[in-house]
Amino acid sequence: MKNKVLKELILQKGSFVSGQRLSINLKVSRTAVWKYINILREEGYKIDSVSNKGYRLVEGPDPIMVDEIKDMLKTEFVGHKIIFMQEVNSTNDYAKQIALNEGEGTIVIAEKQTGGKGRMGRRWVSPPGTGIWMTLVLKPELHPSKVYQITQAIAVAVAEAIWETCRLKAGIKWPNDIIVNGKKICGILTEMSAEPDLVYYIVVGIGINVNTGSEDIPDEIRDKASSLKVELGRDVSRKELLVHVAEHIEEVYKRFVSGGFGAIVYDCNRLSVVLDREVEVIGINCTYRGKALKIREDGVLLVETDHGIEEILSGDVSVRGVEGYV
Amino acid sequence: MKNKVLKELILQKGSFVSGQRLSINLKVSRTAVWKYINILREEGYKIDSVSNKGYRLVEGPDPIMVDEIKDMLKTEFVGHKIIFMQEVNSTNDYAKQIALNEGEGTIVIAEKQTGGKGRMGRRWVSPPGTGIWMTLVLKPELHPSKVYQITQAIAVAVAEAIWETCRLKAGIKWPNDIIVNGKKICGILTEMSAEPDLVYYIVVGIGINVNTGSEDIPDEIRDKASSLKVELGRDVSRKELLVHVAEHIEEVYKRFVSGGFGAIVYDCNRLSVVLDREVEVIGINCTYRGKALKIREDGVLLVETDHGIEEILSGDVSVRGVEGYV
Repeated sequence: MKNKVLKELILQKGSFVSGQRLSINLKVSRTAVWKYINILREEGYKIDSVSNKGYRLVEGPDPIMVDEIKDMLKTEFVGHKIIFMQEVNSTNDYAKQIALNEGEGTIVIAEKQTGGKGRMGRRWVSPPGTGIWMTLVLKPELHPSKVYQITQAIAVAVAEAIWETCRLKAGIKWPNDIIVNGKKICGILTEMSAEPDLVYYIVVGIGINVNTGSEDIPDEIRDKASSLKVELGRDVSRKELLVHVAEHIEEVYKRFVSGGFGAIVYDCNRLSVVLDREVEVIGINCTYRGKALKIREDGVLLVETDHGIEEILSGDVSVRGVEGYV
Repeated sequence: MKNKVLKELILQKGSFVSGQRLSINLKVSRTAVWKYINILREEGYKIDSVSNKGYRLVEGPDPIMVDEIKDMLKTEFVGHKIIFMQEVNSTNDYAKQIALNEGEGTIVIAEKQTGGKGRMGRRWVSPPGTGIWMTLVLKPELHPSKVYQITQAIAVAVAEAIWETCRLKAGIKWPNDIIVNGKKICGILTEMSAEPDLVYYIVVGIGINVNTGSEDIPDEIRDKASSLKVELGRDVSRKELLVHVAEHIEEVYKRFVSGGFGAIVYDCNRLSVVLDREVEVIGINCTYRGKALKIREDGVLLVETDHGIEEILSGDVSVRGVEGYV
């Protein structure tokens, strides 16, 4: 009901709507309307109320509205169930709790994560209302040793969705970061539950800094991280971006499922920001320096080092750019 | 406290002990003693109570007593924390809920599973009080693609523990069944939670039919499944077996962690019941028939088929024995 009240306010596009009108449209009492208005205010929406005029949405923080998003979505399964929460510890952790009983394509999304995570348990800052903090449930017939390919498939989809939404050229820092103008604006965290030879489910966390102001990016990462808003100079509709992300994921994922990694490797290479660059790859056991050559047909990154060509299956990649390693 | 009451009763070896004595020994009220006696009765222990004599344990179902087991265990980490439950849906599912916050070596064990599982979600029958239904939490530094090797390491340990406990020759039907006299008496189910290149934790479920009577083995699997009791003709102490399982797991696992699969492959081959036999391997995508040659240094089963030597990473194996496929 709260979301229905919000939807009514948004439909007024900044004009007043009376409590009585809301009460009639939504078939609840005026007291109930007033209650939901206050809940929305607590969640950060600025709503004026004036006697004899009613309520007016002054500033909605580009709210993620599930109903509206579902109306916009043209997908077969990605996003056909969306679980929206105002606040959650981590959308990945939440998704893992429910994934066994969810269908493929279910999306968990939250306005705020209090314990967002990156790879290897690193912290991911997810302030409320400015980003897309979401997790997608997938159930491919895939051997656990191939799950790393999913990360790259999703990265392709996110990069394409950013381009479609706001015409920013987004690249992929192999294997799981999305880069705009040399700065990270999105991270992807893939996790699985599996038997040794059978994946039960995969959850793919996608965190996109959309309308984060430059002042909200922590000092210590400001030279490495940014947001779409900062790079573009204007707000970006999170709803629109979310819809495009879901649609591109479905397209790329279907290609991957039917054709394997070979069916998306061209796009992985096309969108890569590490190829032909000097890179440093910090793996679990050792570190490689050299020139990134290409992403192979199985998703492995080939790096030419002084000692020959290394096949990198996973790791953190730093790229030596004009301003040093990023 | 309940287990302390039980321990006191067991120490009497079938003689009476007064409520007052229990109350003094355990430093609780006589009402509390009475309460715990009733809890034990609800859990299936037959306890007589006679005025002026006290309580007497008539029939304890070879109870798994954590305190006693801990006293017997000579391990560094396996079983140093044991979570015991009278009944649980599945020890693996329970272990997965707590594994992130548990140390390596924690064991979850239950007298009864209501939803025990085998590989690929198959049902595993776990009647109360007669078997060992346990799950071990492990956190090796291992790539997800190598987790299948853990199953084989645990199988070696269980086979050795059965031999040590009751001198039954137990063999391994690659990769995850323990066989005595051609029949399955134990299954192992390994599950993981992981990033594509980083295992968070592994849970290894071990289900051993110990004192299951032949009448309790379902008709439809009686030609394929058995218990130690049926094969040996007498009861086996579950406590003793559990202690040996834990100790052998620690020994084999330490060898595996320091030396890799190569350090245990000799035992995997030595204990295998499939080598030099005609086998049928049902994999996820296809079925192979041929002669099992050996388990390779990486845990892969080599099978000689009409079309050459196949490298089998996973699957269900049937062995053509004297009595047909098992």
